[in-house]
Amino acid sequence: MPEQNTISNAVIKRLPRYYRHLGELMEQGVERISSGELSKHMNVTASQIRQDLNHFGGFGQQGYGYNVAFLRQEIGKILGLDKQYKVIIIGAGNLGRALANYTNFEKTGFMIAGIFDSNPELKGTKIRGIGVQSMKDLPDFLLKQKVDIAAITVPRDAAREVADELVKSGISAIWNFAHTDLQVPDHVIVESVHLSESLMRISYNLRVKEESTGQKKNRK
Amino acid sequence: MPEQNTISNAVIKRLPRYYRHLGELMEQGVERISSGELSKHMNVTASQIRQDLNHFGGFGQQGYGYNVAFLRQEIGKILGLDKQYKVIIIGAGNLGRALANYTNFEKTGFMIAGIFDSNPELKGTKIRGIGVQSMKDLPDFLLKQKVDIAAITVPRDAAREVADELVKSGISAIWNFAHTDLQVPDHVIVESVHLSESLMRISYNLRVKEESTGQKKNRK
Repeated sequence: MPEQNTISNAVIKRLPRYYRHLGELMEQGVERISSGELSKHMNVTASQIRQDLNHFGGFGQQGYGYNVAFLRQEIGKILGLDKQYKVIIIGAGNLGRALANYTNFEKTGFMIAGIFDSNPELKGTKIRGIGVQSMKDLPDFLLKQKVDIAAITVPRDAAREVADELVKSGISAIWNFAHTDLQVPDHVIVESVHLSESLMRISYNLRVKEESTGQKKNRK
Repeated sequence: MPEQNTISNAVIKRLPRYYRHLGELMEQGVERISSGELSKHMNVTASQIRQDLNHFGGFGQQGYGYNVAFLRQEIGKILGLDKQYKVIIIGAGNLGRALANYTNFEKTGFMIAGIFDSNPELKGTKIRGIGVQSMKDLPDFLLKQKVDIAAITVPRDAAREVADELVKSGISAIWNFAHTDLQVPDHVIVESVHLSESLMRISYNLRVKEESTGQKKNRK
């Protein structure tokens, strides 16, 4: 995997999308694809695809296209998907349950190792065979198991406390769903999913669309 | 709101984060803030903040800082948050339930108008007082109600069909949680939340971190 350190964040951000589309192509029985066809499938330009994949030594042969399975596997390696990761979920509410029930994560190597909730009534209830544990048992669990990723699905104020505890216990990465930016040391990876911000990008686009429609009407 | 058409996507993407941080500051009773203090709070440079907010005519006075409530309100207007939006949720599984239960969305003007699911057993069950309706009732519902945003939380293959139906019924925007890119006409806004891709950004960063730690160890 050459020149990886010089890859821009923009390219990195696109890799999971390549991985997903190549998986869809494999499901459809496509074995080989040109950058032109892949570009149609993904709705980006062919030159963008060639540029992106050149960062990783190309994988393609001129006039011959890409081997779909091989390209997907190599992108998977770059994304670290050739390893397994232990994931715990903090918060067994609807969002936590949705994550625990999402079997696709396990297919790509993200194994749910535990689910924790502060609500004593949930203790011992099972989600896809995994028993919900008390938050009190979290530090001990983290001592015994090498957990890579903790998904935080608890409300904002609780999330900060939970993050502090996870950091103390030496967590490597936090997948944050709480409506706040967590303050953690630089060595801890934080990936946030801010659903409210995603909704606001919709309302922004709705407003812009409405205004441009309004302007067109006025011009008539 | 001057010069809005020239605002880059990067700035637009940052606005929801400003909105959230300014909300946190208001909760803390902060009425006025300098770009320096705001930059510490948000962990971006002060010059970035000044640049970003200058796109919207500034809002700040030299040596006097920003009025937190006013700035938040103006950013809210840019984000279209001075209006209410009707949202429906397709899929009453854990993720759909999580969205329906998230009261924060309503605080920012996104009102849940209906929840739909193809499972007949769920019909009539209530989520936060809202009855789950059959997918068969969706076209009629869309005819009668002006729905702005439809959140799709059903599995990938069903999602494509649902999207087609929504587009036919004249939906303005789709909030897509399915593990695929939806094919819709250009006038339909699509905002996707791809949780798998978010996880892959974590595994990528874990791999890079591990390799750099490994290299440091080898150098010793």
